[in-house]
Amino acid sequence: MPSTPVTEFTLISDFTKAFEPPPAPWGPGDDCALIAATKAQQCVTTDCVVEGVHFSFPSFSLADVGHKALAVNLSDLAAMGATPSWMLCSLQMPKRYGRREAAALGRQMSKLAQVHGIRLIGGNVTRAPLLAVSLTVCGLLERRHAALLRSGMQVGDSVYVSGPLGNAALGLRQLLDAKRKSPQAIGAQKRPHPHVFVGQFLRPFASACIDVSDGLIQDLGHLAKASGLAIHLDSSHIPIAAPLCLSLAPRQALQLALHGGEDYVLAFSVPSHTKSRFERAVRAKKLAVYHIGQAEAGQGVFVDDVMQNPLSGYRHF
Amino acid sequence: MPSTPVTEFTLISDFTKAFEPPPAPWGPGDDCALIAATKAQQCVTTDCVVEGVHFSFPSFSLADVGHKALAVNLSDLAAMGATPSWMLCSLQMPKRYGRREAAALGRQMSKLAQVHGIRLIGGNVTRAPLLAVSLTVCGLLERRHAALLRSGMQVGDSVYVSGPLGNAALGLRQLLDAKRKSPQAIGAQKRPHPHVFVGQFLRPFASACIDVSDGLIQDLGHLAKASGLAIHLDSSHIPIAAPLCLSLAPRQALQLALHGGEDYVLAFSVPSHTKSRFERAVRAKKLAVYHIGQAEAGQGVFVDDVMQNPLSGYRHF
Repeated sequence: MPSTPVTEFTLISDFTKAFEPPPAPWGPGDDCALIAATKAQQCVTTDCVVEGVHFSFPSFSLADVGHKALAVNLSDLAAMGATPSWMLCSLQMPKRYGRREAAALGRQMSKLAQVHGIRLIGGNVTRAPLLAVSLTVCGLLERRHAALLRSGMQVGDSVYVSGPLGNAALGLRQLLDAKRKSPQAIGAQKRPHPHVFVGQFLRPFASACIDVSDGLIQDLGHLAKASGLAIHLDSSHIPIAAPLCLSLAPRQALQLALHGGEDYVLAFSVPSHTKSRFERAVRAKKLAVYHIGQAEAGQGVFVDDVMQNPLSGYRHF
Repeated sequence: MPSTPVTEFTLISDFTKAFEPPPAPWGPGDDCALIAATKAQQCVTTDCVVEGVHFSFPSFSLADVGHKALAVNLSDLAAMGATPSWMLCSLQMPKRYGRREAAALGRQMSKLAQVHGIRLIGGNVTRAPLLAVSLTVCGLLERRHAALLRSGMQVGDSVYVSGPLGNAALGLRQLLDAKRKSPQAIGAQKRPHPHVFVGQFLRPFASACIDVSDGLIQDLGHLAKASGLAIHLDSSHIPIAAPLCLSLAPRQALQLALHGGEDYVLAFSVPSHTKSRFERAVRAKKLAVYHIGQAEAGQGVFVDDVMQNPLSGYRHF
């Protein structure tokens, strides 16, 4: 069988085929993708994962990279309570990458895209010395729904997180050097699950929200600053992920849960007058959310009344 | 003066300050930028420039990179006839880059952004071994305006380009090895001027449009394919940029104009029944457009009746 020469266009075709993108001009194939007028508000964001910074080979497979690149972007839509709508993908691929690699990246990304109903409508491919995947995603908010912003928290609001913390940071350590590996921690590092459905569920309840990507303390610092308040946490209420408790001393485990990063859970606040209705809805939906603290007058983030360093969070490896 | 430590957040602040971005949630500062509902259609696209592929140092300054990264994206909006609205910027910056470099990149990009009225509303910064700038841009089309697509060309339409060709490709050669340098060619390579206003002017006249980024022949190939037609060009009508005529033999100059790439002019078609109205409007506006050929039944792009190789275009250095 004669093989087609590898060009920008064959790479695009191999990457996109798993997505079954809509035809141009709404989908790929013209100078821009064309989006019809909409009555919804749109939430847009862009995030990029880079080889040697956010992932490295052979610890990660191309499938892992494809998944994670989309997951970290969807997590930002989750934090706004938005419903994923469309995405653009900008790929930087090393010269040794051919059609097989382009397809492997696209296949796993398309699986996560299908779960969340987000459509690939365009992008570009360029050569580069190392693999990098930069996505732009757009989510919709019906007019009757307010976006979940960082700035809406009030004094007295309860502060929650939507899942246990520290797994992804432990997974990163274990990828780099540990002998005993926890599949749960490694999985959280390579294939995070963005809390998109939780974000949509929170819309009628939460006063403010952020996704935890750089570590709980650092991200709560953004929430506190945007709302002009302090957040006080109780260390005994922090949901430390089980693998941390098995492999670290309690104090180390708490520190990793507070500062580790890449959890991609949501941290959010709920006003006191909504709290009981919110907790009933949580039980009815069988969601795992954890009440970790309280918003108070002041500034900064405190754990057991000790002020935390706002720049303590995750640094890329 | 004590210096602030360089973090992701100081780099973002230094990069964005020249743009005077709108406050969150429409501008940067939350998990996503929030865009109000609009009655216009939106054109979105993403393109990336990478160190060592699309530019290299010291031939390019950071100001050149900032300009070019936005120019190549605006050129895609121009090709749709859209009015630039907002942009997201994903920056990959080497570790040696600090606040000065972030500011230098932003300053020049913001100048071009102001010319075209496009607002920076979000983005991200990450470390990477080499500089790369990936932008997503959005342009608006009022409901009464149709987008300029690649697929609308009809048999008998006249084919035009909106400027002389080959300057940027000559500039690239001269940056790499020539002794005699043409400021015009070097300028076209480093600081291309996207034809955004020309694109808007074309909306009531053109049946199809594309921007010339990969070389006239390759890009007309996309137009021809999307419209299901052939395009026949007359070599004597190709507007070869003056510096090519001065420094190359006539045949080489024509080849570079046809295949060189990075011109960022528009190639478009005008139906015969609109042609005289179009040419009057062109004269009234004192625009430089060049009638180079005709759409006919068939497929492919022909110069003086010789079929051209569709993959002949620009390859990154």
